[in-house]
Amino acid sequence: MNISILTIGDEICIGQIVNTNAAWIASQVTQLGANVKLHSSIGDELEEITGEIGRLLKTSDMILVTGGLGPTHDDITRTALCEFFEDELKFHEPTFEFLKERYARRGMEVSERNKLQAMLPSKCEVLKNSRGTAPGMLFTTDGKILISMPGVPNEMKGIMADHVLPLLKEKMAKSTSVHVFKTLLTNGIPESTLADLLGDTAEFLKGGTLAFLPSYHGVRLRIGAVAENFLKGNLEIARVEEYIRSKAEKYIYGEGEQNLALAVGNLLKEKEKTISLAESCTGGLLGAALTDAAGSSQYFMGSIICYSNEAKIELLNVPSETILNNGAVSCEVAEALAKNVRLRFKTDYGMSITGIAGPGGGTLEKPVGTVWIGIADEHSVRAKKFIFGTERMVNRELSVGAALGILLKSLQS
Amino acid sequence: MNISILTIGDEICIGQIVNTNAAWIASQVTQLGANVKLHSSIGDELEEITGEIGRLLKTSDMILVTGGLGPTHDDITRTALCEFFEDELKFHEPTFEFLKERYARRGMEVSERNKLQAMLPSKCEVLKNSRGTAPGMLFTTDGKILISMPGVPNEMKGIMADHVLPLLKEKMAKSTSVHVFKTLLTNGIPESTLADLLGDTAEFLKGGTLAFLPSYHGVRLRIGAVAENFLKGNLEIARVEEYIRSKAEKYIYGEGEQNLALAVGNLLKEKEKTISLAESCTGGLLGAALTDAAGSSQYFMGSIICYSNEAKIELLNVPSETILNNGAVSCEVAEALAKNVRLRFKTDYGMSITGIAGPGGGTLEKPVGTVWIGIADEHSVRAKKFIFGTERMVNRELSVGAALGILLKSLQS
Repeated sequence: MNISILTIGDEICIGQIVNTNAAWIASQVTQLGANVKLHSSIGDELEEITGEIGRLLKTSDMILVTGGLGPTHDDITRTALCEFFEDELKFHEPTFEFLKERYARRGMEVSERNKLQAMLPSKCEVLKNSRGTAPGMLFTTDGKILISMPGVPNEMKGIMADHVLPLLKEKMAKSTSVHVFKTLLTNGIPESTLADLLGDTAEFLKGGTLAFLPSYHGVRLRIGAVAENFLKGNLEIARVEEYIRSKAEKYIYGEGEQNLALAVGNLLKEKEKTISLAESCTGGLLGAALTDAAGSSQYFMGSIICYSNEAKIELLNVPSETILNNGAVSCEVAEALAKNVRLRFKTDYGMSITGIAGPGGGTLEKPVGTVWIGIADEHSVRAKKFIFGTERMVNRELSVGAALGILLKSLQS
Repeated sequence: MNISILTIGDEICIGQIVNTNAAWIASQVTQLGANVKLHSSIGDELEEITGEIGRLLKTSDMILVTGGLGPTHDDITRTALCEFFEDELKFHEPTFEFLKERYARRGMEVSERNKLQAMLPSKCEVLKNSRGTAPGMLFTTDGKILISMPGVPNEMKGIMADHVLPLLKEKMAKSTSVHVFKTLLTNGIPESTLADLLGDTAEFLKGGTLAFLPSYHGVRLRIGAVAENFLKGNLEIARVEEYIRSKAEKYIYGEGEQNLALAVGNLLKEKEKTISLAESCTGGLLGAALTDAAGSSQYFMGSIICYSNEAKIELLNVPSETILNNGAVSCEVAEALAKNVRLRFKTDYGMSITGIAGPGGGTLEKPVGTVWIGIADEHSVRAKKFIFGTERMVNRELSVGAALGILLKSLQS
């Protein structure tokens, strides 16, 4: 089952927003064993849209389209679909009733503008959008399927879950070519060192594939296989995984859709440990990462974001001489912050980040990118120095990744 | 100047990572007046790559390619380019010297694996990558240009800044078709209300275009025009902008690449006001947004992330009866948090967010998505209730957007 993902919208094309929809859709259909051939993003132009649909239908069994279904004049996907499928818009009673209900619940009446959203191509199967006003549309042509969904991520996800994924699951059950993937997550080893450690890939991979994906929080290893069915695909993957683990087990902290913050959170939960943070240059990013997961209140007690020196002194009892003598970005301050935030929040662990994210603030001795990360538990406190790069955003992300890596090791030991 | 952006990499295709490169590249070339026709993302497969390059060359004057230049076996873009341009790999001395230097600085020797990165197609112009090991490559064919860059965002951005954008600027200076855009940023008005307020677009737009882009932090209005040169394009845009401002001025807080957090930060700087935060359900996201900008230490003093009730009580002096009587997600607690964090950090403003992000923690009376946002200054303290949706991530983002909106209004009044 070859799937193409088509994103419609000038805002994507000119780079005003990042195309997160395509990635989400791709990850969902990949999990069901389908093969994503291509993502394509084009502007809100009639000829571009019909041309691209025609092209994609040649190589794909299914096209998943998002965008261009809103209530304003610049949304023309419906019109383009009518043109391509030689169809016309027709009033769709159930959609209109649903719209009326939806508005009534908020004590509003359907506006003329929103009424237009009940005008739908006559040949399509209407897919109810329980989270918004523009329904999805399913067209069938020569045994191939095109599904159009709104671009609002939350609404698209609802239609995918309610209609598209169940349909695809049904189709994949009959398919004899299933694409299977598994990702192993590593931390604490650079990409090329990891590649050298694993050795000649051709030798151990045989039928499978292996990809190296570096990120701020470590290198991910994606194993892939194409097989008749999931059972056979998973056997192939297991064989490659076993080999990789035999070589690099100690760097692997998790698998699949997990990430470093989740893995750390799960370990904290498992070991019934709590944590608090003192963040300076990351301004709350580490706390945001640790609270991204539901249920994080079990282990995350809170942080003090001590951006100013006064906050470090007054809220976290860092002696002002310590800052004066060593600077705010120093081993001594990182240790004091970690130790004192732990006491403040009465947690098992206290962590601190203090650094120069840039672009300003660097000196010859402490260039932009210098970051100290501290960790304290009931027995000890220590801090580690990192020198990252020159980009503020990258430095902040790498700091979060490094802090999570340190915490992971502490929890594993 | 029609530009297509081609992203190569299975990890993008199957949705393992989000394609932020394409958006960044598109926004940069759009600023120079070029027309981005299409983004395409395909996997690391030789035939797919050569096929797509052939197709894109038919409709584009320039193709910007990223990905597939890494040191591991799964990176095959170089091979595909050789095949497409009927070229072969040749040892490139200056690249090797640069690699050696780069490694020497870190006290390392070039590994065999990295040496391969100095093997480059003989027909291309090599574009030096000052931030990494894989250089860019520029091919010219029938007056059209293809540039291949690494997928690591930081390295790609370096090559864009050093080589691609200067070249494009030169070409655009000779072009007689320039695409010009301007974006107005609004806050506090829903998309369809804004559309109704602006009225019949066809009437005031004439040659220009207008797009509505909803986001967590407000609706963005993008005005567009195609003209002979920037001067004429900007005149057309100014005409449309004037009309929009005459209708919706009070909702417009900024323009262009700014965002709500930046606008608020600039206002704080301008008015010489400082702020501190007490975040609960957002776990640090609001602080992270406010410190995203360089120089934020001028106005942002710090936060207390009071995820647990104990932290609210002990670090921010919220009386335990207040939590007992009203719940942690309440007007009373939001007000106490805002008031007390302001006193703690001695700032002009104190803001608080306390809510139920979900998926757990909701009750009939206080469903998931209930969020109280408080704000205090020297004269007063108040809090506002929001009921967002059911998705944790969306609720956290909308809370940050709402808090920034409240702060913006306070700063403007």
